[in-house]
Amino acid sequence: MYRFSRPTMMGMAPFFKVTVFEQEHFQGKCQEFTSECCNIQQCGFDNIRSIRVQSGAWVGYEHHDFQGQQFILERGEYPRWDSYCGNLSYHVERFLSFRPIYCADHQNSRIMIFECENSLGHSAKLCEDYPSLQAMGWGGTEVVCMSAHTFVCYEFPGYKGRQYIMECERHNGAYQHWRNWGSHSQTPQIQSIRRIQQ
Amino acid sequence: MYRFSRPTMMGMAPFFKVTVFEQEHFQGKCQEFTSECCNIQQCGFDNIRSIRVQSGAWVGYEHHDFQGQQFILERGEYPRWDSYCGNLSYHVERFLSFRPIYCADHQNSRIMIFECENSLGHSAKLCEDYPSLQAMGWGGTEVVCMSAHTFVCYEFPGYKGRQYIMECERHNGAYQHWRNWGSHSQTPQIQSIRRIQQ
Repeated sequence: MYRFSRPTMMGMAPFFKVTVFEQEHFQGKCQEFTSECCNIQQCGFDNIRSIRVQSGAWVGYEHHDFQGQQFILERGEYPRWDSYCGNLSYHVERFLSFRPIYCADHQNSRIMIFECENSLGHSAKLCEDYPSLQAMGWGGTEVVCMSAHTFVCYEFPGYKGRQYIMECERHNGAYQHWRNWGSHSQTPQIQSIRRIQQ
Repeated sequence: MYRFSRPTMMGMAPFFKVTVFEQEHFQGKCQEFTSECCNIQQCGFDNIRSIRVQSGAWVGYEHHDFQGQQFILERGEYPRWDSYCGNLSYHVERFLSFRPIYCADHQNSRIMIFECENSLGHSAKLCEDYPSLQAMGWGGTEVVCMSAHTFVCYEFPGYKGRQYIMECERHNGAYQHWRNWGSHSQTPQIQSIRRIQQ
């Protein structure tokens, strides 16, 4: 029987490493990173079209300086834009900046969600993954998060659609209005939510 | 504090209900179902373009008679093809049949994965969700599943890419070759795996 290794769950600091490629399927110009990159074009790339995440959890962004659509990147291989992008009706295929996610902890993550803005209405404390918030009895579509460890919220059930990273270290962990979720956020609707795996 | 309801976790039989629509965003001709539909065209629809899942977990299929790409559908709203489809490089937008998933149990699901075909090589028993199998120390891309409760396996990390439902009641729960995963399966690669929520 194979034993899964769980370094971050044993309290070890994660080591971060990705390799980005200018072409799909890990072709063309490539470069390895162990820390954030605010603009891949400054490294001579016109775009990132595939990425290998060797260690740690990362978040990629559509635009430079960590703006635009967010792409949650856990360890593994992402050969094409549609392997990391969630919003497919908005087909830009731009991936210009990325950074490590430092406070992901799959075991100890906690998040509070509120039915209305500014921490009003019904609230719930979550510490698991929920592929369907509605299936768990959460009727509100106006979900606002605060006091988060690192979670990722999704527009649609089953972890589909736009992705929004919610971190305890950003906005003081408080995302009290859906416009704080990200510069591309256009709806307050969240239908699934999960922890991020380091 | 809001209390999540967990009917299926209390052992109650789930009630199944979906409403399908011929147009996107829940427009046009619609019909409610509480059991499987092997061909929506026999109901006078040319295609399903949006769907509301009111109760239970369902699986949709690209073709009639439960063939082609699979779409895992948990409770919630799916207004466009890209809100349920995982394989976006293959842009067909066909959704012609669907059925309930009877043995989904978010709490008691178990699955064995093997590194090689026919239950050979390293193996692991999973009972949680794994957004990155590689992050958990699973290096093999040739993952074959058997003895499954209902799980969904994905081509890419973070529950992206092609989706494959693995059920204890189909193939006797044994999916010993990746060609058994589904009629559209083209690669043995699985990078994330999760339980299905009823």
